[in-house]
Amino acid sequence: MTYNLVLLRHGESEWNQKNLFTGWVDVPLTDKGRTEAARAGELLIAHELLPDVLHTSRLKRAILTANLALEAADRSWIDAKRTWRLNERHYGALQGKNKKEIREEFGEEQFMTWRRSFDTPPPVLDDSSEWSQVGDPRYANLADAIPRTECLADVIVRMLPYWYDGIVPDLQLGRTVLVTAHGNSLRALVKHLDGISDADIPGLNIPTGIPLHYQLDENLTPLNPGGTYLDPAAAEAAIGQVAGQGR
Amino acid sequence: MTYNLVLLRHGESEWNQKNLFTGWVDVPLTDKGRTEAARAGELLIAHELLPDVLHTSRLKRAILTANLALEAADRSWIDAKRTWRLNERHYGALQGKNKKEIREEFGEEQFMTWRRSFDTPPPVLDDSSEWSQVGDPRYANLADAIPRTECLADVIVRMLPYWYDGIVPDLQLGRTVLVTAHGNSLRALVKHLDGISDADIPGLNIPTGIPLHYQLDENLTPLNPGGTYLDPAAAEAAIGQVAGQGR
Repeated sequence: MTYNLVLLRHGESEWNQKNLFTGWVDVPLTDKGRTEAARAGELLIAHELLPDVLHTSRLKRAILTANLALEAADRSWIDAKRTWRLNERHYGALQGKNKKEIREEFGEEQFMTWRRSFDTPPPVLDDSSEWSQVGDPRYANLADAIPRTECLADVIVRMLPYWYDGIVPDLQLGRTVLVTAHGNSLRALVKHLDGISDADIPGLNIPTGIPLHYQLDENLTPLNPGGTYLDPAAAEAAIGQVAGQGR
Repeated sequence: MTYNLVLLRHGESEWNQKNLFTGWVDVPLTDKGRTEAARAGELLIAHELLPDVLHTSRLKRAILTANLALEAADRSWIDAKRTWRLNERHYGALQGKNKKEIREEFGEEQFMTWRRSFDTPPPVLDDSSEWSQVGDPRYANLADAIPRTECLADVIVRMLPYWYDGIVPDLQLGRTVLVTAHGNSLRALVKHLDGISDADIPGLNIPTGIPLHYQLDENLTPLNPGGTYLDPAAAEAAIGQVAGQGR
């Protein structure tokens, strides 16, 4: 039995466009992001990878990307499951801040540490900040365990329970699973799937809006390590752009 | 404890516009239908009836109505559950047929019997019809129990198990529940909630795109019998139009 897993990073959001650190702030897609999402659905049809079930974060940019992709693929009717465990990395006190300004204020090294370090989280976000999610009813179940900042290692720790308990059972039923999520929650999952080292993960970028297909064996090991982008040329071009953010 | 239930009939579909019997055929919304859906979301905000959980049918016109209404109400993140038990009535051999032509061919009495009789289903739809849902993967769990035609009494029988097992538990958790569905699956639910007789139910019409709010007591009895439309004037105007279909 081969399992089919499709990962999809949400299309461009308003804060991607403004070059702001977003994290858990619930910003909408741009028109470009909507177009990317629909295009992703067309790629699913073209590659005959029609999802049987959807897993998304609790953030509208991932949810809307899924809605638009599934509408384009004529699969709006599949079951949809949402979880904060697929949310973007919480960027702590950087949320709402301009990437270029942070880079100029704190220097290249600190900027890249906050952005790409595996285990160094940014300073915590104050609960009184307008960009805090404390008190948001969608996270009421977390009570005071709601994140105030996260590094990638933290994302792995909170994402993996959902991988095993939420996603893997669907794969084991033979379902084609679509996961729509975020740059860092997907990097966390890809790191786990491909066994990427802590040292190498900072170099991995995942472009927006291009489905990434993994074929997994029964031990959940990729038969195509690194996965296969459904539009490889566009993925390659976009990966260069992601790496250049904050310049 | 008072429970809050909001019923929403999908906005105009392409076959509403063409005056065709739709049933289980999975037709998309028109632009007008999309606008109605977003307007429904604005009404939810205006009346401070923000849903905590969504239940929809498996048909895209109800799912997309929910997606657009929730996007407008900024509640895309809530849990969403889909079930065939909230699908529109299966119209049997009438699916894909023009309402006006059926009325002219078979006469007013037969037309109204098929359309509004409580317990007389239309002729069954042949499995080989292009409008049959036999073989559709979304109904694979039903195997040969998939409907080939239904009267309203049939809809009640297949809808009520989901009311008790799927929707009521969410109400009892204190959640505001949004149900996006169809003219007849919602008539079936309203008949049950309000205790409308078999003789009176043919006279009940539910307009598209206008949220219908029920406050229920702990015995699930409406505190506002008949419910409250969030835009009463628009509902009154639309109800007259629905009743006139096929003319």
